[in-house]
Amino acid sequence: MRATPPGTRLRPALVAPAMAPAKDVHAMTPARGRLRLRSVGVSGIRKPLIVQRPDRANSLTVDFHVAVDLPSVRKGSDLSRNAEILAEVVDRTVTSPAGSLEAACTVIARELLARHPYATEASVDAAAEYFLRRGVSEDKRSLENYTLLASARATRGPGEAVEVRRTVGAEAIGMTACPCAMETCREKLRAEYPLLSDPQFRDFPMITHNQRNRTRLVFELDETTEVEADAIIDVIEAAQSSPTYAILKRGDEGQVVLDAHRRPKFVEDVVRDLLASLPERFPNVPDPVAVVASTVSEESIHKFNVEASHRVTFGELRRSKSA
Amino acid sequence: MRATPPGTRLRPALVAPAMAPAKDVHAMTPARGRLRLRSVGVSGIRKPLIVQRPDRANSLTVDFHVAVDLPSVRKGSDLSRNAEILAEVVDRTVTSPAGSLEAACTVIARELLARHPYATEASVDAAAEYFLRRGVSEDKRSLENYTLLASARATRGPGEAVEVRRTVGAEAIGMTACPCAMETCREKLRAEYPLLSDPQFRDFPMITHNQRNRTRLVFELDETTEVEADAIIDVIEAAQSSPTYAILKRGDEGQVVLDAHRRPKFVEDVVRDLLASLPERFPNVPDPVAVVASTVSEESIHKFNVEASHRVTFGELRRSKSA
Amino acid sequence: MRATPPGTRLRPALVAPAMAPAKDVHAMTPARGRLRLRSVGVSGIRKPLIVQRPDRANSLTVDFHVAVDLPSVRKGSDLSRNAEILAEVVDRTVTSPAGSLEAACTVIARELLARHPYATEASVDAAAEYFLRRGVSEDKRSLENYTLLASARATRGPGEAVEVRRTVGAEAIGMTACPCAMETCREKLRAEYPLLSDPQFRDFPMITHNQRNRTRLVFELDETTEVEADAIIDVIEAAQSSPTYAILKRGDEGQVVLDAHRRPKFVEDVVRDLLASLPERFPNVPDPVAVVASTVSEESIHKFNVEASHRVTFGELRRSKSA
Amino acid sequence: MRATPPGTRLRPALVAPAMAPAKDVHAMTPARGRLRLRSVGVSGIRKPLIVQRPDRANSLTVDFHVAVDLPSVRKGSDLSRNAEILAEVVDRTVTSPAGSLEAACTVIARELLARHPYATEASVDAAAEYFLRRGVSEDKRSLENYTLLASARATRGPGEAVEVRRTVGAEAIGMTACPCAMETCREKLRAEYPLLSDPQFRDFPMITHNQRNRTRLVFELDETTEVEADAIIDVIEAAQSSPTYAILKRGDEGQVVLDAHRRPKFVEDVVRDLLASLPERFPNVPDPVAVVASTVSEESIHKFNVEASHRVTFGELRRSKSA
Repeated sequence: MRATPPGTRLRPALVAPAMAPAKDVHAMTPARGRLRLRSVGVSGIRKPLIVQRPDRANSLTVDFHVAVDLPSVRKGSDLSRNAEILAEVVDRTVTSPAGSLEAACTVIARELLARHPYATEASVDAAAEYFLRRGVSEDKRSLENYTLLASARATRGPGEAVEVRRTVGAEAIGMTACPCAMETCREKLRAEYPLLSDPQFRDFPMITHNQRNRTRLVFELDETTEVEADAIIDVIEAAQSSPTYAILKRGDEGQVVLDAHRRPKFVEDVVRDLLASLPERFPNVPDPVAVVASTVSEESIHKFNVEASHRVTFGELRRSKSA
Repeated sequence: MRATPPGTRLRPALVAPAMAPAKDVHAMTPARGRLRLRSVGVSGIRKPLIVQRPDRANSLTVDFHVAVDLPSVRKGSDLSRNAEILAEVVDRTVTSPAGSLEAACTVIARELLARHPYATEASVDAAAEYFLRRGVSEDKRSLENYTLLASARATRGPGEAVEVRRTVGAEAIGMTACPCAMETCREKLRAEYPLLSDPQFRDFPMITHNQRNRTRLVFELDETTEVEADAIIDVIEAAQSSPTYAILKRGDEGQVVLDAHRRPKFVEDVVRDLLASLPERFPNVPDPVAVVASTVSEESIHKFNVEASHRVTFGELRRSKSA
Repeated sequence: MRATPPGTRLRPALVAPAMAPAKDVHAMTPARGRLRLRSVGVSGIRKPLIVQRPDRANSLTVDFHVAVDLPSVRKGSDLSRNAEILAEVVDRTVTSPAGSLEAACTVIARELLARHPYATEASVDAAAEYFLRRGVSEDKRSLENYTLLASARATRGPGEAVEVRRTVGAEAIGMTACPCAMETCREKLRAEYPLLSDPQFRDFPMITHNQRNRTRLVFELDETTEVEADAIIDVIEAAQSSPTYAILKRGDEGQVVLDAHRRPKFVEDVVRDLLASLPERFPNVPDPVAVVASTVSEESIHKFNVEASHRVTFGELRRSKSA
Repeated sequence: MRATPPGTRLRPALVAPAMAPAKDVHAMTPARGRLRLRSVGVSGIRKPLIVQRPDRANSLTVDFHVAVDLPSVRKGSDLSRNAEILAEVVDRTVTSPAGSLEAACTVIARELLARHPYATEASVDAAAEYFLRRGVSEDKRSLENYTLLASARATRGPGEAVEVRRTVGAEAIGMTACPCAMETCREKLRAEYPLLSDPQFRDFPMITHNQRNRTRLVFELDETTEVEADAIIDVIEAAQSSPTYAILKRGDEGQVVLDAHRRPKFVEDVVRDLLASLPERFPNVPDPVAVVASTVSEESIHKFNVEASHRVTFGELRRSKSA
């Protein structure tokens, strides 16, 4: 007769039935430091998301950060729910595209509160590369790359009420030409080329340093106001010295360079011109809505960058305009 | 006789004296969007800085972001002054090391206000890689890399008064082991290995997923309270499941693994334990000082990260402790 | 009396007709350093590309690097052609998806030679994020993110002949558990828990450090051999200690941890096991095809990474197997 | 009566003496895939290193990648030795600075072979940020940041002989101005400003796009030839349209812009001019030494970069020059 090996097969069912649920460690009370935590979640979770754009369905690759707060009596947040929600929302868009990236964020934020009953706040931040067909002329258009930015923050209020605050934004790479070095060069060159003092050259576009510029505009919205991402990209590009393009034949290159030098801009100008353009461009955005504009010029004459940023409400913008 | 060519030599002195100062474009009033801007400055400016540490002078390579606000009537900020200030402060440390990274930030912030007379606020943010000699034992110590973080924000008050708020912080890479998967594995393995139900195994360190963890702690200080960066790194490493080291011989590796599995931690635990340890470790830090703790575990069982963060004052920490 | 001021309206048509073509600076001979250049091109050019996968059309966001060589007598390469080719190929996939990322690279490489008649070599490198539905069970599948890698190198031969060499590869994030620390911990724990010496524990999965691992496999192919990217991802994941997933409920987490600890692997093991699995998995790949396997473990017990890599032909793999 | 529980105190000494050495898992033979591996090592290991420069000792923060090959019969490489070697070499420089980064690499590569007796090749790659005092004039100099690059590859030859091949290189950020767009703009502006056709304007610096440029030059050396990093940086900066500086007062900015526009360069020109300048600048470098030049212009008129690269020997450079 075979001796029973000290083994797996005999005793397990007695001492540790395979079906016994493992301890719910997350639901335990924390041993030390019983503090409510403002934010517990996952970052760098990447998902493809189909979004309905004005003219077509668009497949975005989205980088998500989702988080909820955690009460002081609970050791851990049920993070697997976050991944499940993202997967469900993403799957749903295959058959029924999301209206926008911010709409998807809102759905996710609400669902986070629903599935983390202990949480009072849920936040979703999303960024995705985005393409628009642009070009110097109809026959030279190609898909230019931009960044879409969106977020939703859901807060549990009294009763079942959930309030959601959203942001919608975009970043566009363009070009700035420095207005200060242009004037310095004008002086220097006038000294060397006397004909430049002729009145015809008063507005002559002089050499200056120009460079790649990244500008971002983010609207801080309630749940009902809608702002179209493509329009945000339009106003950003209009505030830079010039947009930039993948396809530029020789003459187009010259034209872009010329355009940029006829609209030289400090980073300060980019932010101010961008903000100043908003009331006219977005007449339906209510006064309490705030916007954050920020810009970075990757200076060609320095090894470092130059930056400017500002946050202001539409109300303030409208009042400063009429003042 | 040779006709005078329309030339460089004849007229320049008349029409455009080489010495004529170029237009001060920055000081002009902006054409559009006359808004005060919250922040205009330079980023990614890198400088070596000699800092006096408790035991030695230490050469840091610092990444600086410096900025000031800009009044609505002025087109541009005099950014060359920012680079000059940085250069002077850095040069000075060659002969007279800075007391700390935050002390250097404070000097720079005050100088920014002095040289941008139109500004009311100046901010300096600095990050630098930093090395401390650490190891599992005296003979296995080597230089481990950390990140130092510091900032100073100077505000022009009434009269000549300038108020400075500073932050001092650090980030340390360590290790977390998951307490939840450990319990799940305990259940699973008990079913398979019945002897594990023996009481001797009650606290047996079971397998779980463990991973690289980055934790950051930042103190928000007034200008007088001092917090030592090395002490910040100490409390961070004490809050992770285990610190990590470059030099680990075979037995040491086992010991670090064992230590980490005897202190399994969620990101939530890292933040709470870290914050809970502060009142005892920093008894002289006054109640109004706030700290921000944040942690990221680069999960071994997921392709994404898990994060937690919280901000709290020392007063709140002390009250929650005695409660 | 001075005549009519030299004005914009009078002379332009005479001295500089607007239609006069600008100098073709690229076609000039270089002033210095008349060397043939190995590679001139564009990098970081990003495009959406629709690719037909086994089960569906898939929208990839691709990062391209495309370049050609340049003869010694020519100053510059006509880089706008590169952007045009990319735009055309990308546009074509909207109505007619590319068969694969490497097929798109091949089309682009051939077209580069066609439109840079002075070039003898053209190279295209492409990388794209890619998603596959994966999970521990049918009901827990979600889209996991991977990286696709492809390239094509076209060489102009005698006559009109163009030879194309291609690479196809992928990178997958998974998990490794260290076999060495596991044995050290086994010894340490046996000393403390004598029951562990019971034979039932001989293969007991002991604690060790485990971590995120990124492994890459690239096939160096001629123009006719096809290798399916999904199959490459399969063999990579099979060579890691365990694949990783976004959706893991508590029991699944335990199972992934257990699986990884039952297949502990050094980076050396990952590379060798991966390479050893290829002849059986890809029987139709001819002997001369080479593969490069490389892997990085983001060590949980260190602040640095551990890496291994190797390049070998299928012939060598087959011979070493039968030896 | 309860039997003695199987306990910690009774059996450990018998079955698992605490002193028993853990299995040497690395030295085992691999289970599958018995292949020699080309490279096994550690990456992202960061260390401060004191290097003697021409004028002063300089503290570098170095990022190291070190690796050796691994024979087919050995499961794992003893990676802890790599960290030990780095620590020792770094510690030694505190009292006795390394002669150069490449000298430190050579010491490490030789030591890797000594401590991995099973290895036949050892490689060390190092990169470090580096500062040089530069400026438009004596009173405006400040520390500009560059990157040092060095490597050493040691090969075990017959007997005890070890052969070492080294590389020494650097990367400098500067500026390029496009010569093609300049000519297009010249044409466009001549049409609009007829006076520009005056001969005095023949070489007038016209507007064009200019941008940040990163150029790298790496020498592939034997163990005896020395090349000074500062001289490498000098030749790189001389090959760009202009170097860039942190401190530029208004007039200096204009001068840098003017200099760059008087030396417009394609990336092709940067590589060729750089290579063409080497024979004269480094007369003692022997013919067989190869150099790799590569350059990236972060185009201001595009969202992507433009690149060129070439590899050539000093012998070829000298012959092409005299041809």
